[in-house]
Amino acid sequence: MSDNGKPTYTEEGKAFERDMSYVPDRILAGERSADPHDAEYGGRSDVTVWPVEPGRYRLVAARACPWANRSIIVRHLLGLEDVISWGAPGPTHDKRSWTFDLDPGGVDPVLGIERLQEAFLNRFPDYPKGITVPAMVEVETVQVVTNDFPWITHDLFFEWRDHHRPDAPDLWPDDLREEMEQVMERVFTEVNNGVYRCGFAGSQEAYDDAYDRLFTALDWLEERLTDRRYLMGDRLTEADVRLFTTLVRFDAVYHGHFKCNRNKLAEMPALGGYARDLYQTPGFGQTIDFDQIKAHYYCVHTDINPTGIVPKGPDESVWHTPHGRNKLGRDAR
Amino acid sequence: MSDNGKPTYTEEGKAFERDMSYVPDRILAGERSADPHDAEYGGRSDVTVWPVEPGRYRLVAARACPWANRSIIVRHLLGLEDVISWGAPGPTHDKRSWTFDLDPGGVDPVLGIERLQEAFLNRFPDYPKGITVPAMVEVETVQVVTNDFPWITHDLFFEWRDHHRPDAPDLWPDDLREEMEQVMERVFTEVNNGVYRCGFAGSQEAYDDAYDRLFTALDWLEERLTDRRYLMGDRLTEADVRLFTTLVRFDAVYHGHFKCNRNKLAEMPALGGYARDLYQTPGFGQTIDFDQIKAHYYCVHTDINPTGIVPKGPDESVWHTPHGRNKLGRDAR
Repeated sequence: MSDNGKPTYTEEGKAFERDMSYVPDRILAGERSADPHDAEYGGRSDVTVWPVEPGRYRLVAARACPWANRSIIVRHLLGLEDVISWGAPGPTHDKRSWTFDLDPGGVDPVLGIERLQEAFLNRFPDYPKGITVPAMVEVETVQVVTNDFPWITHDLFFEWRDHHRPDAPDLWPDDLREEMEQVMERVFTEVNNGVYRCGFAGSQEAYDDAYDRLFTALDWLEERLTDRRYLMGDRLTEADVRLFTTLVRFDAVYHGHFKCNRNKLAEMPALGGYARDLYQTPGFGQTIDFDQIKAHYYCVHTDINPTGIVPKGPDESVWHTPHGRNKLGRDAR
Repeated sequence: MSDNGKPTYTEEGKAFERDMSYVPDRILAGERSADPHDAEYGGRSDVTVWPVEPGRYRLVAARACPWANRSIIVRHLLGLEDVISWGAPGPTHDKRSWTFDLDPGGVDPVLGIERLQEAFLNRFPDYPKGITVPAMVEVETVQVVTNDFPWITHDLFFEWRDHHRPDAPDLWPDDLREEMEQVMERVFTEVNNGVYRCGFAGSQEAYDDAYDRLFTALDWLEERLTDRRYLMGDRLTEADVRLFTTLVRFDAVYHGHFKCNRNKLAEMPALGGYARDLYQTPGFGQTIDFDQIKAHYYCVHTDINPTGIVPKGPDESVWHTPHGRNKLGRDAR
């Protein structure tokens, strides 16, 4: 926090490090995780287990936020709209974080609160950490259940299976799991978080290092996606959802605002086409609102954009142009 | 100037307006302008006329600055290197403006000063306006003669003709003059100054208007240059020099730092090819130093880039790629 009370994101002389401590609770179908690769979880003493129950929870997820965007996409892909409702905070927030300013009267119509912070304080009156989206909130008590974003999408898949639509994709194919975990880990540290490491660098050296790391990873992805339609081959998986939410924001905010500017995504043929392919896939593009995305980054990070002016560009029509990726689909491999 | 003593470029709620009052003196070959279209000048009571004289003046022009860059290019194109020496301030400056920090000891080796400001104060002890480049400085007295940038390049052409190299281009062809003045005027107000109007906008509305004006003009240029190799047809003129110094900076600074981000220059085929064509023409690309350009904008404008971090991108290799513009040359028209 700066002297003038505005939130700060860069720390002079420091590299950016994301605070990864979240409310670690899980919503599970049984007593333990339904994912055989997840033996550790569900029995941890610091994790409270909540039951899967249609209508019991509300997913609070801002369209602007890439971490929240994952959960909105997965909810759509799996057809969970009728069992988990969705509350959408507006794109901008102050030091007390996300608000329901887009809703009538500035109040979430289901939870009846103005600020997501209230759901955190209802459960933990002295909650000391960041008020983040996505968050699963119990509707009746208006208490936050968890904001541990990688587990939220994981559990939407493994724990809510009885409620998936019949033709829901297998986002976590068992035969690809080991490699997929490695790919997702590298995408997380180098790309999802890598763009923030560029934008919130507190020194030229930290920025330069972050830029090199990011584009090393993007070059790896460009090569990987040259002969694969999706990250794991011919099947859409959770790994693609996690990469997409960063790529779709790349030219609109990370390229300029976060100085990830070796090139635009549109200048990388495979990655650009891959992102457009996903954008045009039901469940992806419909969750994207570029005005909200730009407003969020350019208005919230006043320490790197003190004027608060939001760019009009880039031209969004590129997202609707042919991607030419079909030839890399199942039949071609 | 802001409260903390740092220079400010944006003014809250205001559109950016360039202060166009400069030291209006002229260096002329005779008593009046040698340009028949310039009847008004040379006899104005507020304009002191200085004589053309090899070795008498030093052109002070930072590589980083687009307005100064014009004069460096024209000096090269006309072969005036031996009669007018060149002093180059470094890319960054403080509220007292340009310094010779790149020179040994931080002192210009010919003028013997650390700051360009000294040459202004030597002539006008209470000089109230901006210390700007380009500036012509009399070597013996270390006094500024003029910093009126459009007239500096004009006069390098019309007044120093006896010293031009034999095959110097006709940068101001008489038969095209009327249209060329109109083109240069529109390029100046809409493009050269248009990018600053975007970057220094003091409100969202002022920025939005500036962005629309800029891209309207770039679309006009894209169309004009689709079937013309140069702005005025098949001949390189001063109009091209004036447009080039903005275009060459577009992707490196204006696109991100000034939020001129509908698209990169590289995404406009005619304008992008035109800029590369000029870059690869002797006298143009050799005057460009992208590190200095980026350092200038990103370090000097602390009110829009408070961290002072300079982006590593964009990839500069595009400037050396084929431009395919030869087919629009004299033979083709």
